[in-house]
Amino acid sequence: MSGGQGAQSFSDWAQAQRARVEKALDEVLPGAALLPGRLHEAMRYAALSGGKRMRPLLAFAAGELVAAPVDVVAYAAAAVELIHAYSLVHDDLPCMDDDVLRRGKPSCHVAFGEAIALLAGDALQSLAFDLLARTPARDPAAQVALLAYASGASGMAGGQAIDLATAGEAIALTELERMHALKTGALIRAAVRLGAGCGRPMSADENDALDRYASAIGLGFQIVDDVLDVEGTASSLGKTAGKDAIQRKTTYASLLGLSAARKRIEALRGDARAALAPFTTARRLLELGDWVMARTH
Amino acid sequence: MSGGQGAQSFSDWAQAQRARVEKALDEVLPGAALLPGRLHEAMRYAALSGGKRMRPLLAFAAGELVAAPVDVVAYAAAAVELIHAYSLVHDDLPCMDDDVLRRGKPSCHVAFGEAIALLAGDALQSLAFDLLARTPARDPAAQVALLAYASGASGMAGGQAIDLATAGEAIALTELERMHALKTGALIRAAVRLGAGCGRPMSADENDALDRYASAIGLGFQIVDDVLDVEGTASSLGKTAGKDAIQRKTTYASLLGLSAARKRIEALRGDARAALAPFTTARRLLELGDWVMARTH
Repeated sequence: MSGGQGAQSFSDWAQAQRARVEKALDEVLPGAALLPGRLHEAMRYAALSGGKRMRPLLAFAAGELVAAPVDVVAYAAAAVELIHAYSLVHDDLPCMDDDVLRRGKPSCHVAFGEAIALLAGDALQSLAFDLLARTPARDPAAQVALLAYASGASGMAGGQAIDLATAGEAIALTELERMHALKTGALIRAAVRLGAGCGRPMSADENDALDRYASAIGLGFQIVDDVLDVEGTASSLGKTAGKDAIQRKTTYASLLGLSAARKRIEALRGDARAALAPFTTARRLLELGDWVMARTH
Repeated sequence: MSGGQGAQSFSDWAQAQRARVEKALDEVLPGAALLPGRLHEAMRYAALSGGKRMRPLLAFAAGELVAAPVDVVAYAAAAVELIHAYSLVHDDLPCMDDDVLRRGKPSCHVAFGEAIALLAGDALQSLAFDLLARTPARDPAAQVALLAYASGASGMAGGQAIDLATAGEAIALTELERMHALKTGALIRAAVRLGAGCGRPMSADENDALDRYASAIGLGFQIVDDVLDVEGTASSLGKTAGKDAIQRKTTYASLLGLSAARKRIEALRGDARAALAPFTTARRLLELGDWVMARTH
């Protein structure tokens, strides 16, 4: 992929990929000086206000397995991040989570008003598909179908609807897992598959192995999130902490207890590693797995 | 395309195409019996509650120019209609137009609550791109890019943002026209181009001619809408009437007066006819132009 990768630390690699995806986002997001400026400004605010860029990192790391050109993966990664950004804008709206803080800054609707935030989320979603359809992967239409399925009623939006329907109810672990497999898992799995879709075709076995990895990462990410909501502070998280308990949400932390939740995270880290056994070039995916499971914000 | 078309009245043809697109919508919309049922129910409520299906009719009529298989056009037409349906759900939300009536029935958020309506709109948008990416047109990725561009900040969502930004302000005719070219025009032009994208390739001249037709239809449609808002009643329109005057919106009716607005509609009807001159198989597009310009609800 790039010269001297062997010597590059994970943290340097991650920073380099973040810079790549942010360059791609900056390029494809409409300029705030163009009309309608307020809408464009809100879209840029939502998509360019930092964040861990976990989904783009997963796309880049998966791309490495299949010798995908990084410049192509950058656009696929940006498309996933646009979907993620739109979902945060809509999630924070008063009729949903009513959250005023995101990444340590006012939420989009606090900064721009509800109507513009709603439209900005809508337009970020459209832009994701516009971009992905024009990204020269092996099969751009298949990439679009994959991301659209992961975003919609069978994926992220469906998971959010289940979350709404069960809010304040005690739910069982299997139900919680199904909800998160859609709400956050679907987009994480899509990020991995989209990155892999930018390179050589994979065998069915390779596809399955990569999907097992992505599923473990997706679930582990969510359990870490639940644990951090208990342990973290607003300043460390960049968003309101302790919300789950206030909202009496069923979480992995509330169902399992913190200690068992942490053990589950370790088990999933092992699952992710094991899934990557067939690959010889999975270094960044391995490192990402460790990073996701050990993150503190 | 189909036997005996020559003898089929416009109204019978339109009913047959509406049945086709509704069958396609019913097929691709997730079942209300599947989890999350409430989300699926809201999506179906929004997309299957009637409507004129003008955009699908335009797609079918454009498909006839290029011998497109109607079964393929049906999915492209359904994709455009899903975008239209999502935009109505989000437009009606309290933070936007706050409208409680749509097609003579309670708006989606009145029937299902704001959170589910927001998610249903989001998921309808995803479904549109999922469907279009899987529709076997000549170039599915190009079709996706076309619809996504028409839906987003450079199209429908951008037009809505301009509408918001100029609400209550007196604006000039050129600004009003630019706003509508995005807010309603972009999706109408996309419907025509998507239908044409399901058949034989067209020449650049043919593409230009078809786009001139679509632009005239789009603008004419909007002026008719403005006139109907003054002249209509809630029961004839199936939505709240007289809203423009109450909201002090600048409309073609308020800027030109009703009589000049009607003359403008007639001129656009002529433009649409003239644009179709190069085509020998444009019967349904001609009839649709007349129907759009003469509609009473």
